[in-house]
Amino acid sequence: MPPYEPAFPGYAQKVAKSFGNQSMMTTFGAALDGLEPGHCTITAPILPGSRQQAGYGHAGLTFAIGDSAAGYSALSLLDEDLEVLTTEMKINLLAPAKGDLLIARGRVIRPGRRLIVVTSEVFALENGFETLIALMQGTMMPVRA
Amino acid sequence: MPPYEPAFPGYAQKVAKSFGNQSMMTTFGAALDGLEPGHCTITAPILPGSRQQAGYGHAGLTFAIGDSAAGYSALSLLDEDLEVLTTEMKINLLAPAKGDLLIARGRVIRPGRRLIVVTSEVFALENGFETLIALMQGTMMPVRA
Amino acid sequence: MPPYEPAFPGYAQKVAKSFGNQSMMTTFGAALDGLEPGHCTITAPILPGSRQQAGYGHAGLTFAIGDSAAGYSALSLLDEDLEVLTTEMKINLLAPAKGDLLIARGRVIRPGRRLIVVTSEVFALENGFETLIALMQGTMMPVRA
Amino acid sequence: MPPYEPAFPGYAQKVAKSFGNQSMMTTFGAALDGLEPGHCTITAPILPGSRQQAGYGHAGLTFAIGDSAAGYSALSLLDEDLEVLTTEMKINLLAPAKGDLLIARGRVIRPGRRLIVVTSEVFALENGFETLIALMQGTMMPVRA
Repeated sequence: MPPYEPAFPGYAQKVAKSFGNQSMMTTFGAALDGLEPGHCTITAPILPGSRQQAGYGHAGLTFAIGDSAAGYSALSLLDEDLEVLTTEMKINLLAPAKGDLLIARGRVIRPGRRLIVVTSEVFALENGFETLIALMQGTMMPVRA
Repeated sequence: MPPYEPAFPGYAQKVAKSFGNQSMMTTFGAALDGLEPGHCTITAPILPGSRQQAGYGHAGLTFAIGDSAAGYSALSLLDEDLEVLTTEMKINLLAPAKGDLLIARGRVIRPGRRLIVVTSEVFALENGFETLIALMQGTMMPVRA
Repeated sequence: MPPYEPAFPGYAQKVAKSFGNQSMMTTFGAALDGLEPGHCTITAPILPGSRQQAGYGHAGLTFAIGDSAAGYSALSLLDEDLEVLTTEMKINLLAPAKGDLLIARGRVIRPGRRLIVVTSEVFALENGFETLIALMQGTMMPVRA
Repeated sequence: MPPYEPAFPGYAQKVAKSFGNQSMMTTFGAALDGLEPGHCTITAPILPGSRQQAGYGHAGLTFAIGDSAAGYSALSLLDEDLEVLTTEMKINLLAPAKGDLLIARGRVIRPGRRLIVVTSEVFALENGFETLIALMQGTMMPVRA
């Protein structure tokens, strides 16, 4: 894993502001739980309104926080006037989303001017133990804000 | 596209019941809008609480209804005592989710006893015109209920 | 499917020249079998040297011709001085690659200045019947030649 | 990364035999270069007949060795009478395949009775330095031999 340098010193505030503007994250009760250049952690409880038919966390929840964690890991490396868009994302679901909290850890695999390749791992925390429930691999595209 | 035969005559009720048990669909205001063997349509408005940082529909919303439409297209072909799980899904995001309504159309590409390959297209309806905003391709796995 | 317009009238010669420069296509005995703006067909026999452990066509063969067909469907729409690179590709393998000939049909789903979303279907022709053996969905990026 | 236990003591011979039966690996000049339970390394030179239009290694080569390395990482954990099939694979291409040798390192992320989730990283070795050129994430399915 290379050590990444942020291009803009205010990257953390920029990410926090963008996160706060995502109403979906509020709906999910999600929190921005960690940010380093090229790395981002987002957590979310499995709220009563975020479930699939068997009562587990919905894949849409897992995807949303994994995608956002990956996106912000990319955004943390960009100039002040750039945003990121997800162009594509693949998710493999490994285990049911059950437990007390979901934890998505995104990171940049390869930064680039045109495209940024990212991954995200999503874990379910239950009784103090983390289980990997999803693995994601995708592409972010920098765009002018 | 082959014509599919349902394995269980009550497939539509089974899908409707499963859909109703997904609290996430209620959170999103989503509706089951069409079901034929091997095909399923789900719609959702872009609620104030379902947005990303620029105010468009969140990719988690697009993913969730696209994945569910694909999943129910698969479930519509299965025996009474089987459910489906998404094992993996790839999404390419083609345009922002903006407009009055999102429409996800899932269908079965290849049914199978062990795995079912599915696709989903998600459209945004704006002023009466549909724009393709996402293309999804994934795998569903039948499991005992 | 929108009707696509080529940006450069010599697109077919440009694609044919690029195809001829791919030594891998020669190794596979592949042929450029059809080209329309936004659409490309490539065929390949299952040569003795293109097989996996059970004697079927190797997934690398299926991937290679499917990816090339998708890439040339994108290239057919670009200006004279642009090439394309595959940035990512997802393949679902649906059936063994067995028969007399593999046929890959690529097409553009959404053209764009920065990224072009494409799909490819690969069929195996056996005794005159085509079986869909792979479905691919990916992204091409225009680059200066 | 969990420590994996092979289910069958002769797993290395089984993998070597399967590798030897892939004529495509011979065509590519590929070699099985390392095997531990849940991990497999395959290398291949960029032969004159394995190139794309610009003279770099073809994405089909990168895919083929990455897919095989991932598949054998899965096969190394299975009972004697089981084989594996790739059901789906996603590849992100990060850099051109140029250099003296390609090195694919596959590993099991989550073993399972029905499905095995795997990843593969492909590197290009040039002047003694490795560059990550592709990241792959996919699913293997155990099948009776």
